[in-house]
Amino acid sequence: MNYSAMSPKEVRKLIKEQKITGQTSGMCAGYAQANLCILPKELAFDFLLFCTRNPRPCPVLEVGDAGSRIIKEMADNADAATDFPKYRIWKNGVLTKEVNDISDIWQSDFVYFLIGCSFSFEAELIEAGIPVRHIEESRNVPMFNTNIPLKKAGIFGGNMVVSMRPIPYDLVVKTVNVTAAMPRVHGAPIHIGNPKLIGINDISKPDYGDAVTVKDGEIPVFWPCGVTPQNAVMNAKPPIAITHSPGHMFITDIKNSSLKY
Amino acid sequence: MNYSAMSPKEVRKLIKEQKITGQTSGMCAGYAQANLCILPKELAFDFLLFCTRNPRPCPVLEVGDAGSRIIKEMADNADAATDFPKYRIWKNGVLTKEVNDISDIWQSDFVYFLIGCSFSFEAELIEAGIPVRHIEESRNVPMFNTNIPLKKAGIFGGNMVVSMRPIPYDLVVKTVNVTAAMPRVHGAPIHIGNPKLIGINDISKPDYGDAVTVKDGEIPVFWPCGVTPQNAVMNAKPPIAITHSPGHMFITDIKNSSLKY
Repeated sequence: MNYSAMSPKEVRKLIKEQKITGQTSGMCAGYAQANLCILPKELAFDFLLFCTRNPRPCPVLEVGDAGSRIIKEMADNADAATDFPKYRIWKNGVLTKEVNDISDIWQSDFVYFLIGCSFSFEAELIEAGIPVRHIEESRNVPMFNTNIPLKKAGIFGGNMVVSMRPIPYDLVVKTVNVTAAMPRVHGAPIHIGNPKLIGINDISKPDYGDAVTVKDGEIPVFWPCGVTPQNAVMNAKPPIAITHSPGHMFITDIKNSSLKY
Repeated sequence: MNYSAMSPKEVRKLIKEQKITGQTSGMCAGYAQANLCILPKELAFDFLLFCTRNPRPCPVLEVGDAGSRIIKEMADNADAATDFPKYRIWKNGVLTKEVNDISDIWQSDFVYFLIGCSFSFEAELIEAGIPVRHIEESRNVPMFNTNIPLKKAGIFGGNMVVSMRPIPYDLVVKTVNVTAAMPRVHGAPIHIGNPKLIGINDISKPDYGDAVTVKDGEIPVFWPCGVTPQNAVMNAKPPIAITHSPGHMFITDIKNSSLKY
């Protein structure tokens, strides 16, 4: 099946029916994909406040009403409990299970958060003629813990996680401009050039994802990363939290290009 | 006293001491001013969600932790309970009192919301050579109820309130660009040209504020207005809510120019 050319609605149907249970990378070309975090309402204000205070790593695309599974804005009537290929269930900060459907454990006080994903701006970078190394090398993007403190909200805090893409010097300004136009999917870089300044000692050893080649004439460019809010949730060790499994995203009905201003 | 040339810190001190209890318009030239809404934590998630879903009329500048009066981001250690010249106390949607200090009625579950104000972009319009009619005519900006529906969150909903400024045809594009660069203070216009299309029958009869002259060669331009969130709170009739009195704003330490991207 050519999932790349299919519509988000068609692919979401296959996901709901569990005919697709794998990663969504490359599916429904041109459409934005989203990260998931589900928390009980008791923690939802602090988590929304955490995202509001840290919009660069935690750009909120949509938040459900308490108890509601319905996704209205990012898709036409999708279901937060069935329309991700794989979910992770966390209890007190410990991963307890991976499942393909959370209908049976949905609680009336659950609030879902859809958070923007850098997949969206990578499509725009490629469109603009800017190389995206981990895609060229068929790897996951390299991600790093940093010393950049986040603003706390309730039990949520910690440091920012960033993703890194090596960019040729003569394309750095264009890279900043292309990504700055898309603040709902992390926006402009948070740092350019000196990994040590943000607490990264070795860019060949990412904390998450895979290392990629940095060629002569390229400079490492760092963006706020969607792993940040997930990390903050895990570190806070709430009694229950649900996230998507890495790479197993929600495919929205929204074109990447319409996430620009 | 020339309050226009004074620093925000100095003016806030006079406000805290109740030596200033009047409107803040024109004070501390160049610095952003902010709207206030205070709600009990029980309603804070829904209100923050309402703002998140309606960022154009409800641009959140800062939200306090539950129970905290301290303003950290928009000012250096200011106090949400004393640093506005005048507060309005609402019970079940009814205005019950206006006071200059709310220290004595502050509750441990209160959450304050500071919301962006179009004062900030008006300074930028004038700087760009664009006339701002109500300032020229020393009136309050004309504001209107519209038929533009807001996205609901819990008990909060209703239609958008807009402000109107007549703009010469040849400056409309510049006006859009100048204000679009400041999304944290309402950003670009929401409508240009035909008041009837957004449910306004007579632009000489504003629902709030004062009418202003629309000259030949000018077109009415409408922006999302900060009265919107206050209206939503009043219409929801919460047991208790506190807002600033109209025009009696919080003066931040943030320059209008730094609210741009």
